[in-house]
Amino acid sequence: MRVKDLALLSITLIVSITVAWGGNPCCSYPCENGGVCMTKGDNYYCDCTGLDFSGKNCETPTFMKRIKLWLKPAPSTLHSLMVNNKWLWNIVNNIGFLREYVMKKVLTMRADLIDSPPTYENHHDYITMDSQFNYSQYTRTLPPVPSDCPTPMGIWGKKEMPDVGEIVNAMFVRKEFLPDPRGSSTLFSFFAQHFTHCFFKTDIKKGPEFQWGGHGLDVTHVYGKNKHSENLLRSFKDGKMKTQVINGEEWPPNVDKVPVDMTYPGNVPKENRFAMGHEFYGLLPGLLMYGTIWVREHNRVCDIMKKEHPEWDDERLFQTVKLIILGETIKVVIEDYVQHLSNYNYKLMFKPDLLFGELFQYQNRIALEFNHLYHWHPLMPDEFNINGTKYNLKEFLFHPEVVVKHGMREFVDSLSKQRAGAFGPYNHGPFTIPVVRDLISHGRKLRLQPFNNYRKKFNMKPVKTFEELTGEKKLSKILQNFYGDINAVEFYVGLIAQKRREKAMFGETLVEIGAPYFTEGADDQPHM
Amino acid sequence: MRVKDLALLSITLIVSITVAWGGNPCCSYPCENGGVCMTKGDNYYCDCTGLDFSGKNCETPTFMKRIKLWLKPAPSTLHSLMVNNKWLWNIVNNIGFLREYVMKKVLTMRADLIDSPPTYENHHDYITMDSQFNYSQYTRTLPPVPSDCPTPMGIWGKKEMPDVGEIVNAMFVRKEFLPDPRGSSTLFSFFAQHFTHCFFKTDIKKGPEFQWGGHGLDVTHVYGKNKHSENLLRSFKDGKMKTQVINGEEWPPNVDKVPVDMTYPGNVPKENRFAMGHEFYGLLPGLLMYGTIWVREHNRVCDIMKKEHPEWDDERLFQTVKLIILGETIKVVIEDYVQHLSNYNYKLMFKPDLLFGELFQYQNRIALEFNHLYHWHPLMPDEFNINGTKYNLKEFLFHPEVVVKHGMREFVDSLSKQRAGAFGPYNHGPFTIPVVRDLISHGRKLRLQPFNNYRKKFNMKPVKTFEELTGEKKLSKILQNFYGDINAVEFYVGLIAQKRREKAMFGETLVEIGAPYFTEGADDQPHM
Repeated sequence: MRVKDLALLSITLIVSITVAWGGNPCCSYPCENGGVCMTKGDNYYCDCTGLDFSGKNCETPTFMKRIKLWLKPAPSTLHSLMVNNKWLWNIVNNIGFLREYVMKKVLTMRADLIDSPPTYENHHDYITMDSQFNYSQYTRTLPPVPSDCPTPMGIWGKKEMPDVGEIVNAMFVRKEFLPDPRGSSTLFSFFAQHFTHCFFKTDIKKGPEFQWGGHGLDVTHVYGKNKHSENLLRSFKDGKMKTQVINGEEWPPNVDKVPVDMTYPGNVPKENRFAMGHEFYGLLPGLLMYGTIWVREHNRVCDIMKKEHPEWDDERLFQTVKLIILGETIKVVIEDYVQHLSNYNYKLMFKPDLLFGELFQYQNRIALEFNHLYHWHPLMPDEFNINGTKYNLKEFLFHPEVVVKHGMREFVDSLSKQRAGAFGPYNHGPFTIPVVRDLISHGRKLRLQPFNNYRKKFNMKPVKTFEELTGEKKLSKILQNFYGDINAVEFYVGLIAQKRREKAMFGETLVEIGAPYFTEGADDQPHM
Repeated sequence: MRVKDLALLSITLIVSITVAWGGNPCCSYPCENGGVCMTKGDNYYCDCTGLDFSGKNCETPTFMKRIKLWLKPAPSTLHSLMVNNKWLWNIVNNIGFLREYVMKKVLTMRADLIDSPPTYENHHDYITMDSQFNYSQYTRTLPPVPSDCPTPMGIWGKKEMPDVGEIVNAMFVRKEFLPDPRGSSTLFSFFAQHFTHCFFKTDIKKGPEFQWGGHGLDVTHVYGKNKHSENLLRSFKDGKMKTQVINGEEWPPNVDKVPVDMTYPGNVPKENRFAMGHEFYGLLPGLLMYGTIWVREHNRVCDIMKKEHPEWDDERLFQTVKLIILGETIKVVIEDYVQHLSNYNYKLMFKPDLLFGELFQYQNRIALEFNHLYHWHPLMPDEFNINGTKYNLKEFLFHPEVVVKHGMREFVDSLSKQRAGAFGPYNHGPFTIPVVRDLISHGRKLRLQPFNNYRKKFNMKPVKTFEELTGEKKLSKILQNFYGDINAVEFYVGLIAQKRREKAMFGETLVEIGAPYFTEGADDQPHM
């Protein structure tokens, strides 16, 4: 009872504050458990429709919900279960139906947290029809902070946000390279970079909230952004993509032969301008590497399919192999990439029919918050050691030919042996500093809600102190100085600042928010 | 056993025919129950993955499926149950949870028949990635007939399709007006016309398979096709749409004041050029009528919402009322329009949360076949009687001002008293003949599969004879002469030719195919 009294008191306090400033009472985000705050003149009420909660602030669970909540393990307990207990998972991994059951649970539990159909977009702090029918924006999981709030973070923090440059200098700039404690390789970080480009396609000319992609894993990173590019990249023989041979190895063709849109600065000689599905893939040798691997794989599968179906024409071979490459991509992403990310002892599996007959929405929209969360630039080291030759990042930038020079085998092998950077504070190299600076500015422009609001949305308790967030004192102090209030910490800053989880590459929040987006996105695929 | 032997024999025959012509063996559509036919050199096999059937042609149900099939009532039995037994439905309609249970079943059973994510598009007779990521086409429920088949209908019918003009003359041209036997009014037919325009948006310049809409009920028929049009139509005061007063009544503004794209021929005087959400709404007074009703309703709801939320600005009022208008549209569509269409004694209900926690895909794609099926031009009479004044269709075409002249009340009242035409043969008026001619030609260009294949896809038995299809002899003979084989009848021709169901406006096939499309489409909406 005491706790409840306290809760009521604090609500009363919030309401009093609200009334005192006479502004929008929803700025304090008083509604709990997904309730929607509605102004009512100078007052507010919470719409708890469809929730298992009622009360002024949707704070009282139904009897059944109370029991469910009581039985439900905390995210950290579940995580601990998955990354430990090797003996248990060895058993589960070897019993087909158990392994499938767990995978089904992993998928549906994660995906359940994503609102589908999508609810919000970037230009309104309430539900609009545009969220459903306007594909040109990233969707929003939480709506923007209303513009009539006392502070940019609602009611918390200062009237003016702290200077981005100062924040970046204080807690983002790399002093010395901090390696990933889980031992992730640079091969892993290039994998992340290459495949996320296929669904994060910001239309920055229109603004950071706009995008021009297909809201899913559409393998445009291999086949080009549209039919025109695809046709340029195709050989129209046996379903295959165009390639060229250099030093006895197959590589993508050059742009002078295959004039797809690619972003190369003027000083890149034409023999180093490779034509690929994604216009940024000339940026780094690691991207040419993955681009080439997929083109080679496409052509390899074409040979197999042609043997299997000699009666198929070029078009059918191409279209079918494109679907197979999508399937392979998702398989590698789930069973290798996410497996590594998660550090689970449970062996994840790609098996689309697990979801047939399950409550799962195939429709996907890429969320702005997912895009922000996937800024993993600390993983990039300052220099690369390719079989003894050292390249700093500047010598890598727009030098895709480095892969060709070393050859695919040597290059891949070297990347696999080099450690990626740790995701966390003090680890953005000089070339990625402008990126993080822009990212934080974009978050402010689009009025992203505070870090703690996202924790609540994804069923985590808000962190109460800066030390609880970071797990140490120095960074806590820095954050305290900048933000004043733990509830005023920005989304990306919170993700970077959070202490790493047990046996993990990331903090709790990044994974608990990222995994649901990921699950909904990777399975938004045509039945094959 | 005898039946099975016969089945095997007929399969053997089909296979022999196949081998005899040496062409694509999938042209005979040998795979049953949703199995996917794959060529294997000169032979074929059926991919039964994910089905409850196995065997060479996916013809053998599992034990459980056999029992389910045995228990499952035929579509005609279900229909009969719904349109009769008034006493039973009176009980169900009055017991809340029973009524909700039936509605849930109606929705999920219907929607289950639609493949989601979408599988086919118009340019390939096999699954491609475009079906998922290319929104510029209507989707396809059944893929096109392969172009290397012996006949345009697979293996059935003649090598050359019968002449479209001759078919239209023989079985579409109206000799005398045939009224709808269920007593539907012309108010009903204009309702159908006005609201389907919001999701059938063929981009005919690119081709009949292309479209430019949002693949759902997006109320663009009220608010315009894009932000630019929407902004032109808005007053930016209290959330309202622009209107003008003529004869003391509210009407949409004129195009010279609100320059949205509208299709008016040159001879329409500027005071008769009304500006509305859909560019075709100047075509007929019945469309101006509905366009006006929605604009007035929008403004009426704005007044209510402003009283409820005096703190809301114009933008929030507008966006929220737009969502309310969408909700009202769906409610009217389900509870009045579909209720009338279905002729069920069960009272349908609009209650979105019935689907929460159900297996239902919100994602929607408008199918080409749905577009074809929704060509209900026989419902249009040749003349309209507006309170004693008779207008032939020519006097209606591009004369929206007729509504204004008579006033809304008199016009609506008159339409509600006039009978619509019957959906069926010999009932296309002169102005709609070019439409049906184009429709059949488009179906051929896009190689729509035969009528009977669609019956199978939607769990109906293929019709075996022309007489079984039409229920009479004269039309059977006409069809026999044109097509030779019942399996060669075209999709739209079959829909028009089929005998009307008991107490219904349409034949069995149109409803059993249309209802699933409808269910998936109307509920593809943002949560409200």
